[in-house]
Amino acid sequence: MSHMHTPMNFCSDCGAPVSLAVPPGDTLQRHVCIKCGTIHYQNPRMVVGCIAEWEGSILLCRRAIEPRYGFWTLPAGFMENNETTGAAAARETLEEACAEVEIDRLFALVNIPHIHQVHLFYTARLVGGQFGAGVESLESRLFGEAEIPWKDMAFRSVSFALRAWFDDRSRGSFGLHTADLTPPKESGPLSPAG
Amino acid sequence: MSHMHTPMNFCSDCGAPVSLAVPPGDTLQRHVCIKCGTIHYQNPRMVVGCIAEWEGSILLCRRAIEPRYGFWTLPAGFMENNETTGAAAARETLEEACAEVEIDRLFALVNIPHIHQVHLFYTARLVGGQFGAGVESLESRLFGEAEIPWKDMAFRSVSFALRAWFDDRSRGSFGLHTADLTPPKESGPLSPAG
Repeated sequence: MSHMHTPMNFCSDCGAPVSLAVPPGDTLQRHVCIKCGTIHYQNPRMVVGCIAEWEGSILLCRRAIEPRYGFWTLPAGFMENNETTGAAAARETLEEACAEVEIDRLFALVNIPHIHQVHLFYTARLVGGQFGAGVESLESRLFGEAEIPWKDMAFRSVSFALRAWFDDRSRGSFGLHTADLTPPKESGPLSPAG
Repeated sequence: MSHMHTPMNFCSDCGAPVSLAVPPGDTLQRHVCIKCGTIHYQNPRMVVGCIAEWEGSILLCRRAIEPRYGFWTLPAGFMENNETTGAAAARETLEEACAEVEIDRLFALVNIPHIHQVHLFYTARLVGGQFGAGVESLESRLFGEAEIPWKDMAFRSVSFALRAWFDDRSRGSFGLHTADLTPPKESGPLSPAG
């Protein structure tokens, strides 16, 4: 799913207009209902995905949706209510790459504060080497390290996690990798999602 | 901050009523505006905090707010937009324990899917051994391992992270610890937050 925060003009509880104000005891401006007083907090969202390995290669999907149509990514998407981070990673991999995975462990956490997102990537094993293309993917493919299309990657968080994975593999030891991304210098259609 | 998701009765974009429906290409019911068609996604939120150490002891806060008024917790709270997970952990520790910390690294990730939360705890060093009580805390104190008030802890995620920290310290090696919590068997006022 690629969904953005919707505008906050009206109270989702009672339907009256909201205004920006700092609630008592708070330090930040919030959307507050002018009628019922409900405070509408907005918080970062998690995007969760898999580095799914099969015989030394990694599964990538080519995006069939914006942002970054036609570019390559790890299978990943917004975490849903009522699921765990690991279940979200496996679900997104099934949806985008028609691939069943066994989740291994958390490998990378990437903060992208300017778009209010935290990206989590899990290491995983592709079950039976089977995969396909979900409705949000043009195609899926397994790539060895030398074949990764680094210049055609959709998102910096994905490139970060992939590079860390190949680095760790060459060292023979997998750790936890974290990064905080700042807005790209070049804005525009090539860098819509951090 | 202890804020819950607010009811979703009206469109926050145009103010018209919403209804529950599965959007085209989706698999889950969403709140969809009957007038403008905006889909209102709801996603899990992150609670981020610190295991702040000073001379072998850990900083705990006694809660001055519900849920779990009077019980002990690690300083932690909802991550805000425009900040990183590490910055959120440091901010919450400053707000709740008036304590400046140097963030070390991610130590624990706890999924609590039935309340739509993911809790992250960072290891940290208390700067100068200074702390106090913010408006959401009755008091703060440093506890050695033998003094931890295990029976008076506010949240299971906090107990999990603290036990893992003392276990790792006794082993001399700190790792990353993950857990998925299910609803407590005994529901009611003693277990409102997982």
